[in-house]
Amino acid sequence: MNADAPTAAMLVIGDEILSGRTRDSNMHHLACALTAHGLPLSEARVIGDDRATIIAAVQELSARYSHVFTSGGIGPTHDDITAEAIAAAFDTPISVRDDARAILAAHYEARGTELNDARLRMARIPDGAALIDNPVSSAPGFSLGNVHVMAGVPAVFEAMLASVLPTLTGGAPLISQQLTVHRGEGDIAGPLSDLADAYSDLSFGSYPFIRNGAFGVNVVVRGSDGGRVDAAMAELIVLFPSDTE
Amino acid sequence: MNADAPTAAMLVIGDEILSGRTRDSNMHHLACALTAHGLPLSEARVIGDDRATIIAAVQELSARYSHVFTSGGIGPTHDDITAEAIAAAFDTPISVRDDARAILAAHYEARGTELNDARLRMARIPDGAALIDNPVSSAPGFSLGNVHVMAGVPAVFEAMLASVLPTLTGGAPLISQQLTVHRGEGDIAGPLSDLADAYSDLSFGSYPFIRNGAFGVNVVVRGSDGGRVDAAMAELIVLFPSDTE
Repeated sequence: MNADAPTAAMLVIGDEILSGRTRDSNMHHLACALTAHGLPLSEARVIGDDRATIIAAVQELSARYSHVFTSGGIGPTHDDITAEAIAAAFDTPISVRDDARAILAAHYEARGTELNDARLRMARIPDGAALIDNPVSSAPGFSLGNVHVMAGVPAVFEAMLASVLPTLTGGAPLISQQLTVHRGEGDIAGPLSDLADAYSDLSFGSYPFIRNGAFGVNVVVRGSDGGRVDAAMAELIVLFPSDTE
Repeated sequence: MNADAPTAAMLVIGDEILSGRTRDSNMHHLACALTAHGLPLSEARVIGDDRATIIAAVQELSARYSHVFTSGGIGPTHDDITAEAIAAAFDTPISVRDDARAILAAHYEARGTELNDARLRMARIPDGAALIDNPVSSAPGFSLGNVHVMAGVPAVFEAMLASVLPTLTGGAPLISQQLTVHRGEGDIAGPLSDLADAYSDLSFGSYPFIRNGAFGVNVVVRGSDGGRVDAAMAELIVLFPSDTE
């Protein structure tokens, strides 16, 4: 991997993920989107709705990676503390900002709904942050420094990511090809390791599975040079000719 | 929360999760199982198949939490480096151990399959580690110190967890009840915050959703005292009488 290539981390914020009440789907969505964008995900963390924990994680990840994507905790209720914690992590003031308030006011006025104090919490944006569009429910996310703060509701997270991702510079997308081998992983491990040594510019993953009681392996070859990936795949098929699909 | 109560973290190890190729399901399974066992999950991380990264994460998490559960990277192929990295994190020697070798030898002999060098890698167990049963595919996991090292394949992970979890001391299970309110989260945020203040021994979560184009909120009340959770739920229903299901 190019040492200068941009890197990314995710921070999923929410007690409900850690308790098992909610099954997170944003991490997988982000992983796929970032891989396609050439901005690979290097690490993901799930933490609870705790101010000190959020601050520490944001400071650590934003220092280590080019970009940090967060999900969760930016709604109107008492347990939505992400925006305040992100501002604190960057030692930046936060208040109800006119641009965000205007977006919410227009949204709720069109629906005949009161913009009450709770909803106004969603207009609290750190100074200097850029708003992230929310075409689903209007309350914006924001980017502060290299941290992109988005909602936890999957439809909103995905819409916000679609707004912010095109603005970020990616590298060459990672190309991957897969071969399914209907043999035990232990049978293919030796030859696969030799092939991985011969193609040290590529990465070789081996992912075992159990299907109808039989063991098999998905072998995945990844790299940014499509010709090299093709060449390695051709050798793989020769190694395991009669066991593949 | 009781400061002396046991705590837990998860470490998901695998490039395939970060690239989006594989959707992790072990974290959600573990979260549910630990909540039921009274050993709540405090943090989860996903990292790649990189030795230095695994060592650093294991050292940090095992120092901070009572228990660490890992998934992934203990198979027979070149990218399965978890066992070696865990041993290194604890500065413990690792080698093919007779007890693990005997399990594998019996398993493969019964199937007429060769116990080759690659498969023998799965008998590499750190000195002093306790084996974790694998009723699915025999190759054992292990517990070293407070780190429980399990497979990434969900059927195997779940079987290993079922072996190890009953051996760990949990606290009082967390009780939770949920009320679905068919109103915008901004409408209920004020009264909900007041109720949370009145029941400071409980935790109140507010989880918005969008269903058929309409906004709603699942309000979850959590605590270890069932009577208190019941009392708070009764007040919640009075607050939002006509909007619930």
